[in-house]
Amino acid sequence: MPAYGRFPSSQYLIIQNRHFLIDSGEGTQMQLMHYGIGIHKINHIFISHLHGDHYLGLTGLLFSMHLQRRETDLHLFSFRGLDEILLTQLKYSSSVLNYKIIFHALTEGKIETIFEDDAVTVEAIPLDHKIKTSGFLFREKPKNIRLDKNMLKEGMLLQHIVQLKSGKDVVSKEDELLYKASDYTLPPKPSFSYAYCSDTQPFLQIIEQIRGVDLLYHEATFTEDEKERARQTKHSTAAEAADVAKRADVKKLIIGHFSARYKDLAPVLKEATEIFPTTSLATEGESFELND
Amino acid sequence: MPAYGRFPSSQYLIIQNRHFLIDSGEGTQMQLMHYGIGIHKINHIFISHLHGDHYLGLTGLLFSMHLQRRETDLHLFSFRGLDEILLTQLKYSSSVLNYKIIFHALTEGKIETIFEDDAVTVEAIPLDHKIKTSGFLFREKPKNIRLDKNMLKEGMLLQHIVQLKSGKDVVSKEDELLYKASDYTLPPKPSFSYAYCSDTQPFLQIIEQIRGVDLLYHEATFTEDEKERARQTKHSTAAEAADVAKRADVKKLIIGHFSARYKDLAPVLKEATEIFPTTSLATEGESFELND
Repeated sequence: MPAYGRFPSSQYLIIQNRHFLIDSGEGTQMQLMHYGIGIHKINHIFISHLHGDHYLGLTGLLFSMHLQRRETDLHLFSFRGLDEILLTQLKYSSSVLNYKIIFHALTEGKIETIFEDDAVTVEAIPLDHKIKTSGFLFREKPKNIRLDKNMLKEGMLLQHIVQLKSGKDVVSKEDELLYKASDYTLPPKPSFSYAYCSDTQPFLQIIEQIRGVDLLYHEATFTEDEKERARQTKHSTAAEAADVAKRADVKKLIIGHFSARYKDLAPVLKEATEIFPTTSLATEGESFELND
Repeated sequence: MPAYGRFPSSQYLIIQNRHFLIDSGEGTQMQLMHYGIGIHKINHIFISHLHGDHYLGLTGLLFSMHLQRRETDLHLFSFRGLDEILLTQLKYSSSVLNYKIIFHALTEGKIETIFEDDAVTVEAIPLDHKIKTSGFLFREKPKNIRLDKNMLKEGMLLQHIVQLKSGKDVVSKEDELLYKASDYTLPPKPSFSYAYCSDTQPFLQIIEQIRGVDLLYHEATFTEDEKERARQTKHSTAAEAADVAKRADVKKLIIGHFSARYKDLAPVLKEATEIFPTTSLATEGESFELND
């Protein structure tokens, strides 16, 4: 339940100029606008599960894209049901969107690559919640080596530079080594990974899949004193989220999806950092950057 | 489309301790919370039509009522379709609300009383929009005369006071006039009326139904320079809304539902006040009071 100015779940993820939206709780489009983020760059939306606090902002966002005269295809990843909900809403509003929504149905309990392009893959992470729920694992593919521009000299031929950039040594017609690729290039930039896990109770099965990711978002609806309630509702406590982060040896943890019973989030954060120190709170408008 | 911090349509109306919600665009529950209004007193929700900006906040609100452990019946007035949308959403979230929603289906194009109790009636106002749309006319019933407490004297019998309050003179057994009711009572307080008309293009048929209301809300999506667009989308201009108010001889007009093209609303207000001076803007958190 939204409380203390906190909104339901939605995250905006940019990887190499790809703009992904993860979940879309009520008010997502207003919050994007509030934080100065245009909606026209979003081409892929991932919805973890069909509880209202994770998707009720989707329809308004899709209509606003329509009003902004979007024509580009939009890819929507979700369990079946969301397609029926959207079609019902479109039917009664007598609306035909002026762009195409391509619906990609998730499969319950299956680790699979649901998106892949030149630079990024997205895997479904089966989670353990009251209804079928999937997390999402975003991985940058290995990157190319880079030219070391400080080493380039005047008079080098373009064809030679292109060859060096692809990692190949340049030799003359007489088989004499002209330039050694390793002298003129730098190693690839690191490839980052981000795992979004919400909503779920602690689920050991995900540990291997998310092992070593640079950034993990794991829900932490409750603190340990509400553990019984966490089990009833299939949510996690802050300590449990931190324990998952520790076992999976991730670099950094973000916790979120806090119950309306917590006005002050300091105790929630404290409970997690005692187990996993590099933990941050996912609060409204907060942004996290992974850079080399 | 929400813009400049403006939210889609929703109004909260209190009449003699009855709490009505009229339309429920995305973010309604957050805005109610923001303005310090509890949601548990709302027992009647009126949805004018099934365009997203008038109902997409409803489901989140209904779920929050559930999470707040509501048990009281909730009455929902809308055209058919909203029931199907809600049932589909409940089905996929595997949720059973712990209170009952009583759905009252509106009839297209029909002026009818859709709600009535001791103190208030609500009539449907057929409107002229792209899909079937209904406004709502809220009327207080005539009120009782009131005791003039300044006139009561010590030693008057309770039974005589009760009789005076009901407007009857008090006479002795010998038929002698003891107290004349008109001396001890004040006339009834005025009964107020409020008409909500959104979305619609100007529709002369409503004039007689809303004639003389104390307060009229009429949509004014555009200004006159966008009249062609107003006709295409079956919306009204500010001048047209003011013209309706003038023809219907209402006491006060509120205009709202402004297009995202208007950042500054002063020209919209000016266009209306030139025709109907007692016009106000419906902006976020604004409240209007009708008191004697």
